[in-house]
Amino acid sequence: MSGTEPLGAIDRLIQELNRLPGIGPKTAERLAHHLLAASRVQVMALAEALRAIKDNIRRCQQCCNLTEGELCAICRDPRRDPALLCVVEQPRDVTALERSHTYRGLYHVLHGRLAPLENVGPEQLTIPQLLQRVQKGGVREIIMATNPTLEGDGTALYLSSLLAQSGVTLTRLARGLPSGSVLEFANNQMLADALEGRRAF
Amino acid sequence: MSGTEPLGAIDRLIQELNRLPGIGPKTAERLAHHLLAASRVQVMALAEALRAIKDNIRRCQQCCNLTEGELCAICRDPRRDPALLCVVEQPRDVTALERSHTYRGLYHVLHGRLAPLENVGPEQLTIPQLLQRVQKGGVREIIMATNPTLEGDGTALYLSSLLAQSGVTLTRLARGLPSGSVLEFANNQMLADALEGRRAF
Repeated sequence: MSGTEPLGAIDRLIQELNRLPGIGPKTAERLAHHLLAASRVQVMALAEALRAIKDNIRRCQQCCNLTEGELCAICRDPRRDPALLCVVEQPRDVTALERSHTYRGLYHVLHGRLAPLENVGPEQLTIPQLLQRVQKGGVREIIMATNPTLEGDGTALYLSSLLAQSGVTLTRLARGLPSGSVLEFANNQMLADALEGRRAF
Repeated sequence: MSGTEPLGAIDRLIQELNRLPGIGPKTAERLAHHLLAASRVQVMALAEALRAIKDNIRRCQQCCNLTEGELCAICRDPRRDPALLCVVEQPRDVTALERSHTYRGLYHVLHGRLAPLENVGPEQLTIPQLLQRVQKGGVREIIMATNPTLEGDGTALYLSSLLAQSGVTLTRLARGLPSGSVLEFANNQMLADALEGRRAF
């Protein structure tokens, strides 16, 4: 409504929504008008949920995943294997791996990946905390589960050089064809990974 | 994080975001994780903007558009022609029409359209307020600018029957080919409208 109507509150909401990733000016406007028409209860629930994540969420003291307590539910779970660590970039990677119901060890969340061009070095990540965990002992294997990208691979490589002398077994997630895909549309790197990583029947 | 981590605050935010139109579970999760990583200042600005639209925004006492005062900026503007009313379904339609910088009259916002199947009748819209405005006098022309849809047309037709005896000129927005389109891809209704509404060079 710029230009004609100095509707501070609506414009401000559109502006704030527009800051979110994947929400352009048109979508922000559509969402704002939806919220204007929505019930007060619904809008306040969203506002309260936003406040709550900043007031109640912190990092787990052990694995740095996000939690509302001192330790996250995974670190507190006595049925999980504490000798097995899976290093991931983001909390959402933990969510994704947990969804597969395959992994029964603990995690370490780096909160990013090394990106020298963006000034993200080891000290911006939770790498010191990871080294401390390893030094305390009791870790048998560390699975590098950073993203299969240039930066993710670089981060895993850096970590493996830091941990080379630690006596811990270092592994990384398998690469190959994505399940359910067709060979015809696989790119060169996928096919190279799939051939290189082939296993006996 | 369902099943493994009772992360109340994060789950609640994902749930609330997921209620918004066009935001599915995946997008809600992505947005929530963005907000978790975003600065406290940014998240609180969004929460505050949400609160503000419910606390500060009401309907203009004259045209029913959304405003922060008694009368909206358009109704307050002495340069606008008060004898010309444009009837629209939603506040966002006012925004769209204002963006064209073509219209210099006032508006009337219905806040919906007649939809008997959804139990939206005349009393759910601001039709009584529109009739009052007309009865007060001083209105020369009413432009029906409801959406060119079945329900929008139905609403305009209903209004025109109510106002037939009022002595006010009733018009509706022109229909035809959308500017910048190509004839080849126009549908039958567009072409029929374009032919029917043809004007002399």
